[in-house]
Amino acid sequence: MRVGVVLSGCGVFDGAEIHESAAVLLALCEAGAEAVCLAPEIELAHVINHRTGEAAQEKRSVLTESARIARGKVTPLHEARAEDLDALIFPGGYGVVKNLCTFAFDGLQAAVESSTETLIRRMHAAGKPIGAVCIAPVLLAKVFEGKNLKLTIGSDASTAEVITALGHRHEVCDVHGVCADKQNRIVSTPAYMLAQNIGEAASGIRQLVREVLVMVKEFKTL
Amino acid sequence: MRVGVVLSGCGVFDGAEIHESAAVLLALCEAGAEAVCLAPEIELAHVINHRTGEAAQEKRSVLTESARIARGKVTPLHEARAEDLDALIFPGGYGVVKNLCTFAFDGLQAAVESSTETLIRRMHAAGKPIGAVCIAPVLLAKVFEGKNLKLTIGSDASTAEVITALGHRHEVCDVHGVCADKQNRIVSTPAYMLAQNIGEAASGIRQLVREVLVMVKEFKTL
Repeated sequence: MRVGVVLSGCGVFDGAEIHESAAVLLALCEAGAEAVCLAPEIELAHVINHRTGEAAQEKRSVLTESARIARGKVTPLHEARAEDLDALIFPGGYGVVKNLCTFAFDGLQAAVESSTETLIRRMHAAGKPIGAVCIAPVLLAKVFEGKNLKLTIGSDASTAEVITALGHRHEVCDVHGVCADKQNRIVSTPAYMLAQNIGEAASGIRQLVREVLVMVKEFKTL
Repeated sequence: MRVGVVLSGCGVFDGAEIHESAAVLLALCEAGAEAVCLAPEIELAHVINHRTGEAAQEKRSVLTESARIARGKVTPLHEARAEDLDALIFPGGYGVVKNLCTFAFDGLQAAVESSTETLIRRMHAAGKPIGAVCIAPVLLAKVFEGKNLKLTIGSDASTAEVITALGHRHEVCDVHGVCADKQNRIVSTPAYMLAQNIGEAASGIRQLVREVLVMVKEFKTL
């Protein structure tokens, strides 16, 4: 099983959340699946100094920074082919709503990065499962606006409202659980939307990876 | 139990190895210990583009980049006090031999970064255990040159020779195991010196964290 892991940079405040990304890679490895790290070839929306929280006056590439999490091996999203992948997983981090889409800046009017949207649509159209960690369900909610998906971002009321405003169902979920929309083959888990530490985040992510891989197997035996 | 986790940046080729750092934080969390992320307030020796492997024309701070792994909460090493910590763990990555010491550039003549050396010496003098992952045993070998520690970097012959040339004993160790020098309270594990994937790295690291915490408890009951 080959699972695309879509990274959005390297660091919670401007890119992919590092603990969540590592937890996804670890859970896939421990389940015997191959992770294929992917990232869009675009600039970070901005670079945040993670110590101070302030924006820094520099430019960095989402693809190049994602390579730090991938230990070098990262494929530009626009080169990824749905035929080569059995599933797709999005770790969280602000990068998902700053780089993969612009929700952090534009709210419900967010634009979705084109190579990201293309791969999501192709995977979904091919019946392949998609996992979304932490804030990443908001990206799927925007791509599939009005399609009545079942998603969770944990229990935060204002973010849950975003899910419903975009035409989906929000399900409250604790940090160790997942929300599985079996009909649409989409699995989500709150991770750091609720997690107080890396152990809690990794616990829900292990569950999400397990559920995504079950869906892959079900799809393969169709 | 409070364990200092010394980061050396964010990314295997110029900083702390991200999978190893996350695996250390996860294992500590799952064992009920508190991780205190620390990093020296210095510049990275150089910035490596992790996709191409080439040096980039920019400057970054070890402390600021380490904050990405720490989700913001990282203490400058020179502010850390041995009295406040029960143990110290060094994840690997080239940052250990480029930023925490200069072994990657100067070999056996390496200089050790001063705040790093000070904290290592104080922890060791206080009888508190130190864990070293991947290439990090080389840092301890340099700080304690000639002290006949028992260390492992896995099975790589040329790196093992460095350990012996600095006056220590090298013990061959597989990726799931640890080398425990109980007399000196130093534990090492090969991780990505041998690991083919994040699962193998995390396996040895869990073992290392377990062994370090056993040493903390032994010390506390003395």
